[in-house]
Amino acid sequence: MSLPRAFASDNTAPVHPRVLEMLAAVNHGYAPAYGDDVYSEQVRDWFVEQFGEGTAAFLVWNGTGANVVALRAMTRPFHAVLCAEQAHVNVDECGAPELMTGCKLIGLPSADAKLTPDQIHGAVRRIGDEHAAQPRVVALAQSTEYGTVYTRDEMAAICDTSHELGLLVFVDGARIANAAASLDLPFRAFTRDVGVDMLSFGASKNGAMGAEAVVMFDAAHAVEMKFLRKQSAQLASKARYVAAQFLALAAGDLWHANAHNANAMARRLADGVRGVGGVHITQAVEASAVFATLPRSAIERLQRDFHFYVWNELTDEVRWMTNWATSAEDIDDFVAAIRALSS
Amino acid sequence: MSLPRAFASDNTAPVHPRVLEMLAAVNHGYAPAYGDDVYSEQVRDWFVEQFGEGTAAFLVWNGTGANVVALRAMTRPFHAVLCAEQAHVNVDECGAPELMTGCKLIGLPSADAKLTPDQIHGAVRRIGDEHAAQPRVVALAQSTEYGTVYTRDEMAAICDTSHELGLLVFVDGARIANAAASLDLPFRAFTRDVGVDMLSFGASKNGAMGAEAVVMFDAAHAVEMKFLRKQSAQLASKARYVAAQFLALAAGDLWHANAHNANAMARRLADGVRGVGGVHITQAVEASAVFATLPRSAIERLQRDFHFYVWNELTDEVRWMTNWATSAEDIDDFVAAIRALSS
Amino acid sequence: MSLPRAFASDNTAPVHPRVLEMLAAVNHGYAPAYGDDVYSEQVRDWFVEQFGEGTAAFLVWNGTGANVVALRAMTRPFHAVLCAEQAHVNVDECGAPELMTGCKLIGLPSADAKLTPDQIHGAVRRIGDEHAAQPRVVALAQSTEYGTVYTRDEMAAICDTSHELGLLVFVDGARIANAAASLDLPFRAFTRDVGVDMLSFGASKNGAMGAEAVVMFDAAHAVEMKFLRKQSAQLASKARYVAAQFLALAAGDLWHANAHNANAMARRLADGVRGVGGVHITQAVEASAVFATLPRSAIERLQRDFHFYVWNELTDEVRWMTNWATSAEDIDDFVAAIRALSS
Amino acid sequence: MSLPRAFASDNTAPVHPRVLEMLAAVNHGYAPAYGDDVYSEQVRDWFVEQFGEGTAAFLVWNGTGANVVALRAMTRPFHAVLCAEQAHVNVDECGAPELMTGCKLIGLPSADAKLTPDQIHGAVRRIGDEHAAQPRVVALAQSTEYGTVYTRDEMAAICDTSHELGLLVFVDGARIANAAASLDLPFRAFTRDVGVDMLSFGASKNGAMGAEAVVMFDAAHAVEMKFLRKQSAQLASKARYVAAQFLALAAGDLWHANAHNANAMARRLADGVRGVGGVHITQAVEASAVFATLPRSAIERLQRDFHFYVWNELTDEVRWMTNWATSAEDIDDFVAAIRALSS
Repeated sequence: MSLPRAFASDNTAPVHPRVLEMLAAVNHGYAPAYGDDVYSEQVRDWFVEQFGEGTAAFLVWNGTGANVVALRAMTRPFHAVLCAEQAHVNVDECGAPELMTGCKLIGLPSADAKLTPDQIHGAVRRIGDEHAAQPRVVALAQSTEYGTVYTRDEMAAICDTSHELGLLVFVDGARIANAAASLDLPFRAFTRDVGVDMLSFGASKNGAMGAEAVVMFDAAHAVEMKFLRKQSAQLASKARYVAAQFLALAAGDLWHANAHNANAMARRLADGVRGVGGVHITQAVEASAVFATLPRSAIERLQRDFHFYVWNELTDEVRWMTNWATSAEDIDDFVAAIRALSS
Repeated sequence: MSLPRAFASDNTAPVHPRVLEMLAAVNHGYAPAYGDDVYSEQVRDWFVEQFGEGTAAFLVWNGTGANVVALRAMTRPFHAVLCAEQAHVNVDECGAPELMTGCKLIGLPSADAKLTPDQIHGAVRRIGDEHAAQPRVVALAQSTEYGTVYTRDEMAAICDTSHELGLLVFVDGARIANAAASLDLPFRAFTRDVGVDMLSFGASKNGAMGAEAVVMFDAAHAVEMKFLRKQSAQLASKARYVAAQFLALAAGDLWHANAHNANAMARRLADGVRGVGGVHITQAVEASAVFATLPRSAIERLQRDFHFYVWNELTDEVRWMTNWATSAEDIDDFVAAIRALSS
Repeated sequence: MSLPRAFASDNTAPVHPRVLEMLAAVNHGYAPAYGDDVYSEQVRDWFVEQFGEGTAAFLVWNGTGANVVALRAMTRPFHAVLCAEQAHVNVDECGAPELMTGCKLIGLPSADAKLTPDQIHGAVRRIGDEHAAQPRVVALAQSTEYGTVYTRDEMAAICDTSHELGLLVFVDGARIANAAASLDLPFRAFTRDVGVDMLSFGASKNGAMGAEAVVMFDAAHAVEMKFLRKQSAQLASKARYVAAQFLALAAGDLWHANAHNANAMARRLADGVRGVGGVHITQAVEASAVFATLPRSAIERLQRDFHFYVWNELTDEVRWMTNWATSAEDIDDFVAAIRALSS
Repeated sequence: MSLPRAFASDNTAPVHPRVLEMLAAVNHGYAPAYGDDVYSEQVRDWFVEQFGEGTAAFLVWNGTGANVVALRAMTRPFHAVLCAEQAHVNVDECGAPELMTGCKLIGLPSADAKLTPDQIHGAVRRIGDEHAAQPRVVALAQSTEYGTVYTRDEMAAICDTSHELGLLVFVDGARIANAAASLDLPFRAFTRDVGVDMLSFGASKNGAMGAEAVVMFDAAHAVEMKFLRKQSAQLASKARYVAAQFLALAAGDLWHANAHNANAMARRLADGVRGVGGVHITQAVEASAVFATLPRSAIERLQRDFHFYVWNELTDEVRWMTNWATSAEDIDDFVAAIRALSS
């Protein structure tokens, strides 16, 4: 339960103590259920502060739930959703998007888990042809499954292209805090302000327990969102405890400190192993993940003391994830172990 | 946030302090995600203790999620699910069962929200007729939406009839603790031992924050359950915190004390108002709910100081729910207020 | 293959010879597939003639397909569809509407398979309550499953009430020709002109082989209809042969002659048996069906020579269907047989 | 309506006269609906003759319907279906498989629209990992969308590999007659006998009007197939007219003559243009399609007199389809026109 598991996933990390404190703080007396409580109200206000007037936020249980509810709101079942082939919605949700939306997911090849306007342009074909599922949504992850981050300009270019083609843009923001910290921008600067239509906003990987939100800016769609959330089994009865998690992360911008730490620790790790013989970092380290190849024997030796996943068995590529709780000491010990193997 | 809301719903109650303590207790270091942690393991073991060898329990977020995952496991989309017309799955889940299973829900009329073997017998028609959705599951709530409780013999009779007809029996156990306390029986005595095939097991209304389980006794079905849970967006990443809620309720049988209190307070309320002029209790008070009719003017006067729902606007019938936190003083104040109106 | 089966269903009747002739007439050379042929164009024009400018008709294979495609166009999955409990969409399509729309079907009790404005008013509850599937469509059958027919005024009243309540009105017109002939009105007079939003238009029971249409008057919805049809597997590749069936029924108003004959033969049967001891006609005979109770022994004796269904085993109620091919001699022989049993 | 459209699609061809004759032949008197008629029985018997004892055939309307009903029978919604990226189920059914099964379709790259055992082996990953849709079905087209044909040995190897991996094999046989004629083998020799689990059997492209079948060899699955067909809106009421189309193609092996002609005409075309300057045949011509590249100017000139589709706008690749009605004169005229452009 300690160091050995430190780099496997941000889902294995503990909850930030201030999240637990906030749960206790809201735990007195009776409160309306299903989001009519004052804490949920405060969270919705916080989202308006972050994303501007007209923002509507709907709290849900988890990332897959947030993605599915958002995609249901953006599509009809004959639509297709374009995404990077590595996208969580495409390969890590057991087909939940297909089941719950009826749509086809179209995974586009990508070396860095990012899409480009050109790719989107090329993939939007057969519009009006009733035999083909109709592209309707471009789904981006920010930060991506490879720890890369779209710049504001990249996001803007994708949104512009998508809108010109008649498509909507959805952002899977399970790690949006890491992206905001990495870009050093407010959330809205690289989402709403550049044209993103809807997004999932993750708290669970940022120090919470189990709390996510669907965030939208279109009042017309918001009317039906609460039904989509309930029908998707994503409406918490005792909603104040989901809200409390967001309030804890919002207070004093704890979300930013948590994300900043994770990002900094990933860079520290990357910097520490760069140049080590046999170790090749394979992706830009822009958020909380380091992807690298190293000799199989080194991987096996390291896994005795540290927990992390081999991402690609064929290429001996590993994924090292950091999180809000990762310490410089954690990193330095790990770097030392890697360096020791190389010498 | 205080007394005024006391009798509206068990979802408005706070979380039991020992649940919060357990969340803190598990919040150290790294733990495997998605249920591979030791706490989830302990919860699964607890379910085996409660329901016997071969029991498989799958933790999920909420009651609608538990019901949907279970029904997906028990059906193919051309099946029909029989339930009381008032059943939560039928009228309070925004069509989640229909969407996620594809099945037809058939609500049978019931004065007390309970089904009878005769009703089931009468509703199983057109078997083998491809034009009709094929009855496959009988879905019972225990305790029911009206606060009534099936006896062990009633459960046994329904299971026998259902199985003779080729149907499976599912129990929506969002308030199964209240039923167990009311019947003064172990869980398995009125479920598995009398033939129930699968059930939802609720913790949220019993003092937890957001935690439910699907419980089954058939290893063949259990193989695919984990996929159904994930595809239904009901798999928690940081599963230890869902598990911890169950551990808190299991420790020292806190679940029983909580349910027992709720039931006792409902009886205390019913006893207190019985005989009061103009107040008529309309359902047997066997768990944590009291249904009663009273004059509209009395309802309106009471709602100034106490929060509760009018269940049936046409008949001036109200629902008063108790919960683990309801105190004798809460009840006595409420009874006094009701009596004052009558005098 | 001859008389014995005469009164079971309009689905057991042969195809009108002019339908076969039209199939042969269009069977020369190449024609565009999927409805881009001139015959499909002519059918669409015919529907505009019948229902007025702005009408869009989409040809499909069968009645269940037409109903499902139409309901998909009118709903989102969190909606509910209100209908008579006996409605084909509710009890005779094996749950196809639930599977393909995700919606809940709510069957309302009805003695004559017709709905009333008051019933609809009473069933539209909990609007805006996210826990309840939201009523969105009122689905009527015209003529109904009991051979009854809504008057124009009844249709108008239902449409007015539905629209006031924010609901759309769908007509399952599997036997709409019988209704038009019965009412002696053009199709549009009792559908579009009184507010019907969308309808299924049946040809199969009117002398065709396998041909139905979805008819709508709302261009905004029509844009996505072709995708819904294809995704529902209801788009014929060699569409000219579906179109030809409609052209045959349209030519010289063959549809009217066929429906008129069926209706007249049902009345002849009803008139013939009225007053016969032990025979009680249970529904108004307004289209092509006669429902009656008669002694079980008489039913069994009759079924040796004539094919028909017992509709309700508990009450010894039978259904006698007529069709385009039923002859006066068929009826008179049957009436004579019934009378002989009574004497 | 004549020559100009001759090479666009087998869906634009007329119906074989003997199909129309058979429709007329069955059009007398009453016949049971929904497949209980003697003609449907005869068709089922014919399928048993073709595929052996235990074969169960279910008649449906069209190819997408057949594919969807079969895939529904072979899967649960958390499964994935592997197919060539060009597969009809993947790109030409508007997402019907996703909507109706809930499954993910995974299109594998292929130069000739055929899959290989190695590809399947490589694509079956993450078995048991609840985050990934679980590969369950390999879907092959025979003949393929590119007019190529799997040999018996290729089919056997794919079936062996698939079964070893725990997958089922489905064949989209919209053009299975062309494959049988091409291979000069009975249907069962390259399907059931080598391990195929279920297939769609096409008649529409083989000279029928609108008639397909789902064919299976597993009685356990067959029990629920009739419900799946009905719920998918693929059950014809006047089923004798679907059956009649099959009877016409079965009589005297008309199906074989039709397929043989189409194949022979494709070869005649390929032979005729081989060696013509600027014309490059891009796929093996093994069934009823010829794929070729030729100069854009030539394409445009040819399309004035002949109807065919440009398959790939980027590479100036065209598709020329033949069918049962294509004559040697049709081909020779077309070849002459192509040759004239080249000289």
